[in-house]
Amino acid sequence: MKQYNTEIISVGTELLLGHITNTDTRDVAEMLSRIGINVRYQTVVGDNPGRLRDCVEIAKGRADILITTGGLGPTCDDLTKQILAEAFGLPLVESQSERESLYNYLHPDRPFTPNNFQQALIPEGATIFHNLWGTAPGCAFEKEGKIVLMLPGPPNECVPMFREYGIPYLRRLSQEQIVSHSVRIFGIGESGVDQMFRDEMNAMSNPSMAPYAKECDCLLQITAKAKSEAEAEAMMAPVIAHVKERLGEYVYGMDIESVEEAVLPLLNEKGLFFAAAESCTGGDIARRITEIPGASTVFLGGCVTYTNEAKARLLGIDPALIEENGAVSYPVAKAMAERVRSITGADIGVGVTGLAGPDGDGVHPVGTVFVSVAVEGETFVRQLSLGEKRTRSFIRRMAGNHIFDMMRRWLTGLPVV
Amino acid sequence: MKQYNTEIISVGTELLLGHITNTDTRDVAEMLSRIGINVRYQTVVGDNPGRLRDCVEIAKGRADILITTGGLGPTCDDLTKQILAEAFGLPLVESQSERESLYNYLHPDRPFTPNNFQQALIPEGATIFHNLWGTAPGCAFEKEGKIVLMLPGPPNECVPMFREYGIPYLRRLSQEQIVSHSVRIFGIGESGVDQMFRDEMNAMSNPSMAPYAKECDCLLQITAKAKSEAEAEAMMAPVIAHVKERLGEYVYGMDIESVEEAVLPLLNEKGLFFAAAESCTGGDIARRITEIPGASTVFLGGCVTYTNEAKARLLGIDPALIEENGAVSYPVAKAMAERVRSITGADIGVGVTGLAGPDGDGVHPVGTVFVSVAVEGETFVRQLSLGEKRTRSFIRRMAGNHIFDMMRRWLTGLPVV
Repeated sequence: MKQYNTEIISVGTELLLGHITNTDTRDVAEMLSRIGINVRYQTVVGDNPGRLRDCVEIAKGRADILITTGGLGPTCDDLTKQILAEAFGLPLVESQSERESLYNYLHPDRPFTPNNFQQALIPEGATIFHNLWGTAPGCAFEKEGKIVLMLPGPPNECVPMFREYGIPYLRRLSQEQIVSHSVRIFGIGESGVDQMFRDEMNAMSNPSMAPYAKECDCLLQITAKAKSEAEAEAMMAPVIAHVKERLGEYVYGMDIESVEEAVLPLLNEKGLFFAAAESCTGGDIARRITEIPGASTVFLGGCVTYTNEAKARLLGIDPALIEENGAVSYPVAKAMAERVRSITGADIGVGVTGLAGPDGDGVHPVGTVFVSVAVEGETFVRQLSLGEKRTRSFIRRMAGNHIFDMMRRWLTGLPVV
Repeated sequence: MKQYNTEIISVGTELLLGHITNTDTRDVAEMLSRIGINVRYQTVVGDNPGRLRDCVEIAKGRADILITTGGLGPTCDDLTKQILAEAFGLPLVESQSERESLYNYLHPDRPFTPNNFQQALIPEGATIFHNLWGTAPGCAFEKEGKIVLMLPGPPNECVPMFREYGIPYLRRLSQEQIVSHSVRIFGIGESGVDQMFRDEMNAMSNPSMAPYAKECDCLLQITAKAKSEAEAEAMMAPVIAHVKERLGEYVYGMDIESVEEAVLPLLNEKGLFFAAAESCTGGDIARRITEIPGASTVFLGGCVTYTNEAKARLLGIDPALIEENGAVSYPVAKAMAERVRSITGADIGVGVTGLAGPDGDGVHPVGTVFVSVAVEGETFVRQLSLGEKRTRSFIRRMAGNHIFDMMRRWLTGLPVV
């Protein structure tokens, strides 16, 4: 069985100079790994014909599949198609259908610019990936024993195009299924997880297991290769069961990206709603839950009370309570969760007040956060010390993780604080 | 004057398989370009000794400076130091001071694991970059005419370490200053900007100018190289003035990352506060403004009213108004901005209600959003059609951009809708 190795080449001076983040490579790589195609190398090169040519030569020498992202658009420095066509000795020819689509796409409400039409040029004989999400078409061809795919750079075009056209185009190559599951963990770090399973991991090859650190939590990735998905799943099942058993309450979910994704179905199951009163997280808890489609069945809304006055006006918190204890305090956190719960009529109210930095309040160090969860008859408060050296965005995200973790614990009958 | 070219090699199977996004490369590249050092290539390779060795050989052949990120940590697959030391014929020796620091760092509140100590191994003679943000030290050495820097992978360690140690280490190499400014644009796309300035851009070399698309806006990057920063600035000044003149009201700022960064100082100047009532953005407007340190001098807080009930309970919006017009409507958007303004006592109230998808409401297509800004005596409402094919997160971000753009326009005396 042939093992196809892939190199992803991202073209763009804006990537090279760090003006934008390369999310395309991540998304393309992730989709490839799901159909059992290995990514061996990723390369980023600027809008420079000579250096792109050199990168293509290196890639031809070490990969079977070359996937490019970027450099297909209408601006003057877009050159990927020219270089790739040249590297494989193919002329560029104008696609009549792409020219027409471009005309129709641009016509009604966008300014018409003649440079848009160079996007209709396609290497001769290539399969066209018609772009339903933007203007530049992608394409694919096979030559000299290599498979070449070209995708546009903007992530909201690259990702759906690779999913809709690229993956089906490549799927026929792979007889092997690679299946992967991630066990998501909160409350114990990557280093602790690594130590816990190190000997086992060293002794494993298929399935394999590896810990990864995320910004505010970590995961154990378990991967198996087999002839079929079912076989791969069967190989992983006992490993997953063992891992979940050992990690116990630290496991918040499987194959999800965040604690809030674990909380949403738990609330749905029980038919419960929550509401949030946020100070230092500034709306991030609300944003995180509402980033998930369907949040309206579990989230009523809430208040962002960034100032003391807002805490009084929006939540009706007694200014004397803040005066006495300070805004960053156990009683204020407790009152925030309880007040937002009663004002909105939610089943669960959550509250966050703390110092996300960079400035402190002269009393507590930066990173001090009180997080609270109020349910019928009981309010739980955790005091967190998230570290003075941490960034504002880390502190806000971690505070949110604690809120969702406390909800998860309460909803599954685990101790909350 | 020697021109130093850099290759950044990121090591990590988790990057290669797309489990995490490579933000380190972006941040390191951006800092390098500010001190006039070119990044020519970026490569990502997995935790595989042979392939990392090959990448290092290629990089030695085409770059003067090799910067690695990742693979310095305590887990078993961290191998960057070994391979780089070997590639340059240097033995690894244990640093006594790093061993002690590791012990002190790990001791008080973290689980002690023996594998942590392999992080104290350093290529002989290398300059140690002591890690104040985590456990794995970085390092730098010069050999065979090449300069090698190694940085840890986690972004909250990599970035400050490169800023504090890497940049000063490299700064002595560069006699040339590259200075760059970005003119940030909202309301006209990259393709339109490209068309507007294409002939000029083609005729320019130093300073140079290029348009870049961001997710929900775009920018023109103007860059000059000179012996001094002052000289580079002087070269760019007339170009910047010309560009700002031609783009006019579409320019929302210089060298900032988002419209909200333009709004914050405008509010501060006038001593005004705003408050937000959010439905489909779900707290994202509040989050965005409070992501900026110092937001408490311009932002009071607000309400996330994700359900109709929350709109009534938290904002006191008449349920009959929603009944009559639907939650996604001009009158409801108007009422949200006005109500949050009066409840909080803010100078400006903003409101957003719309369909971020994936599901519609049977009346409007996904992407329909009403955004509103209420000030003393007047309320402005924009109806947006952000596109049925757009993602939920694009629609939310774009709606927020419109809110901040409307505030910017009102604060600077431009027409708001």
